[in-house]
Amino acid sequence: MNAREPRDVLAAKRDGRAIPPDELAGFILDYARGDVPDYQAAAFLMAAFIRGLDQSETLALTRAMVASGSTLPLEGITRPKVDKHSTGGVADGVTLVFAPLAASLGLAVAKLSGRGLGHTGGTLDKLESIPGLKTALKAGEIERQVDAVGCAVAAQTADLVPADGALYALRDATATVASIPLIAASVMSKKLAVGTDLILLDVKAGSGAFMKTPAEAEQLARQCVGIASDWGRKARAAVTDMSQPLGDAVGNALDVAEAVDVLAGRAHGRLRDLAIIFAAEAFSRLGGTSMGEGRGAAARALDGGAALERFRLMVEAQEGDPRVADDPWSVLPRAPVVQPIVSQRDGFLESVDAEAIGRASSRLGAGRKRKSDPIDPAVGIVFRPKVGDRLGQGQRIGEVHARDDDAANEASRAALATMTISDHAVSPLPLVHAWCGA
Amino acid sequence: MNAREPRDVLAAKRDGRAIPPDELAGFILDYARGDVPDYQAAAFLMAAFIRGLDQSETLALTRAMVASGSTLPLEGITRPKVDKHSTGGVADGVTLVFAPLAASLGLAVAKLSGRGLGHTGGTLDKLESIPGLKTALKAGEIERQVDAVGCAVAAQTADLVPADGALYALRDATATVASIPLIAASVMSKKLAVGTDLILLDVKAGSGAFMKTPAEAEQLARQCVGIASDWGRKARAAVTDMSQPLGDAVGNALDVAEAVDVLAGRAHGRLRDLAIIFAAEAFSRLGGTSMGEGRGAAARALDGGAALERFRLMVEAQEGDPRVADDPWSVLPRAPVVQPIVSQRDGFLESVDAEAIGRASSRLGAGRKRKSDPIDPAVGIVFRPKVGDRLGQGQRIGEVHARDDDAANEASRAALATMTISDHAVSPLPLVHAWCGA
Repeated sequence: MNAREPRDVLAAKRDGRAIPPDELAGFILDYARGDVPDYQAAAFLMAAFIRGLDQSETLALTRAMVASGSTLPLEGITRPKVDKHSTGGVADGVTLVFAPLAASLGLAVAKLSGRGLGHTGGTLDKLESIPGLKTALKAGEIERQVDAVGCAVAAQTADLVPADGALYALRDATATVASIPLIAASVMSKKLAVGTDLILLDVKAGSGAFMKTPAEAEQLARQCVGIASDWGRKARAAVTDMSQPLGDAVGNALDVAEAVDVLAGRAHGRLRDLAIIFAAEAFSRLGGTSMGEGRGAAARALDGGAALERFRLMVEAQEGDPRVADDPWSVLPRAPVVQPIVSQRDGFLESVDAEAIGRASSRLGAGRKRKSDPIDPAVGIVFRPKVGDRLGQGQRIGEVHARDDDAANEASRAALATMTISDHAVSPLPLVHAWCGA
Repeated sequence: MNAREPRDVLAAKRDGRAIPPDELAGFILDYARGDVPDYQAAAFLMAAFIRGLDQSETLALTRAMVASGSTLPLEGITRPKVDKHSTGGVADGVTLVFAPLAASLGLAVAKLSGRGLGHTGGTLDKLESIPGLKTALKAGEIERQVDAVGCAVAAQTADLVPADGALYALRDATATVASIPLIAASVMSKKLAVGTDLILLDVKAGSGAFMKTPAEAEQLARQCVGIASDWGRKARAAVTDMSQPLGDAVGNALDVAEAVDVLAGRAHGRLRDLAIIFAAEAFSRLGGTSMGEGRGAAARALDGGAALERFRLMVEAQEGDPRVADDPWSVLPRAPVVQPIVSQRDGFLESVDAEAIGRASSRLGAGRKRKSDPIDPAVGIVFRPKVGDRLGQGQRIGEVHARDDDAANEASRAALATMTISDHAVSPLPLVHAWCGA
């Protein structure tokens, strides 16, 4: 047990005083061990939400969360190691592209991912739509695969940062999720538990993200890189646009097919652009090159087939059907109903409610409300227009992939309702709002 | 279950918004039923502590706490019914005197009491030092005794305001005890669950009380009478001095012996004065007389033996040895060691740390740290000087009643250390700071 009573920790935060780092760490570790009950942790979370946590408290919380379980040092890997994390968005297939792309540039990517929740998709759910593909890898399997192939995308294991899972469930139940220091500690604990040379964060801002404005997202980004810096680790965070779906596909198999198109150099657009930006950032930071050289190398890896080849090897190493890399729809599950989405009027796309598109896809079966819900890998929405695009009445702008006509009709109506169309020209949205970190 | 999710209730209070009364009531009742878990209630308590509760929220909380269990309507009793509650102090034997005194004036007193905790004594512990006396009375027994004798002092039953016990334990564990609206709801729920015509509150202020200043105590007093008034019940609250022990005896049997001395008209001083003030307040408010008439009637009841006779009947009705009313030490347990406390210097008593005296008595065995600790009814401290009294070196100012010499020496040293003695004359302290309520 900690030297100070849990009540003293609660009283300090209740009154807006800073908790000494060792006492906060003791409280969290005692909680992780079951020596501090849920109700005291819940009172702490509410006090922390209202009063805030300063930088040293946030670092202490993060350290204690990491110390609550085992770590993945990846010491056997000699290539420069990079990790990349997104705070979650709609049609956000960057990880599926980034991991093999960075591997094809000579970097090592050991990515531990989560599942989708609410309106946001999850990388694991997407990957598992590839027949046979396993994401439950042991620490040794991850390390061997990264050493051999350059990349692995696996499920976070239960013994890595167990305090995060427990605290997240408690935050969810006590309306204390939306706290920047608590989010930053949760994100960074999982990144710092893995031994990498560079952590890249994609902090999403906009209607499809948790942070609705770039300013809020930048605050979170600064807290995250601050924690890494205090820990002595390198991190860079980009605040990127999530006020519209990033790519076109909002589903699981649909996302994989889109990622393959990008990896094969066939698809251009914002998803490819952002994957290149992150890969170039990693390549230039870890390889000592310029950002321009990094972008060039990344574009060549996509256009020349090297990135797709890494993807094929990764799928194969994880026991998935490698033919997905050549002809995705020869192996991916298809929905029985595919219904076009057709623009109802002429004009310029002014805005899209990305969260509403995510929810519509989730209602089709692509997402889940509760962690234990099953998902349907085949269904989803492909929605192509981006803000600023000119649309014509009757133009096909996407497709709904559904189990039946009723579900397809409802999703199609929902997708159209998310759009605001203007008679006047509209400027496209920036892709990256800001970068922060050393 | 409530129409709104518990999380919505938490989010509102977290952000400093008022919770609609029916939603707050639903949340508390769901908690009492076990449908809202401890951790959500703990988060609510922390948010309520930091953000506060407004008058309508405090009333809703109080109502829900009352509704969580059964009530004691006392409908069969035709005499005017009065209840009296103290927020807790040191040498605070007012209830022991007040209940039979008010009964002797023709009023009915059904007093549900608690046990001592920390440095404050508890009426039940004191009464139970009388051999044979039972405080665990059923609702029907209380009503029949009050009808026959005019007064009963019994233990609060488990089915009366069960939410209070659960919430109090949670507040204790989450550092959320010291919140005026939460204290007010806790105090008033137990008073409003009993059907009386007048509620008298003795809100203590000073070193021996929970509220350290008269201003804080008055805030609590106003909240309490406000709740009663919103409920449509009559309440009057006095803010009284607890910056020194009220009476002389700090223990259990010692308190009973002192109360008998006051009831027999033998002892004069602040304990008698305050008991008369509360009895007169009840008598004049419920009988339509002046406060002066009330004080006169109360003084005559003490000096003429009527109050002592009611005490004897009450003890007898609760199966205690009634000889305690004639010769307390013929039946009360005595400590083996009685050691005089002797003033170390000449001067005027300037201040006493009442809480420290309470703690010293508790360490002798008279009090408890945890609810489940046993107490020793015989031990305690008698400490006679009051602020303003002139003391002479070598003057006997009290006695320690202890199990052994070591404990007696330590308590005697502790009692002397609580005193500040001045060379200059010091004014006595006021007894009542303020009254509030309609």
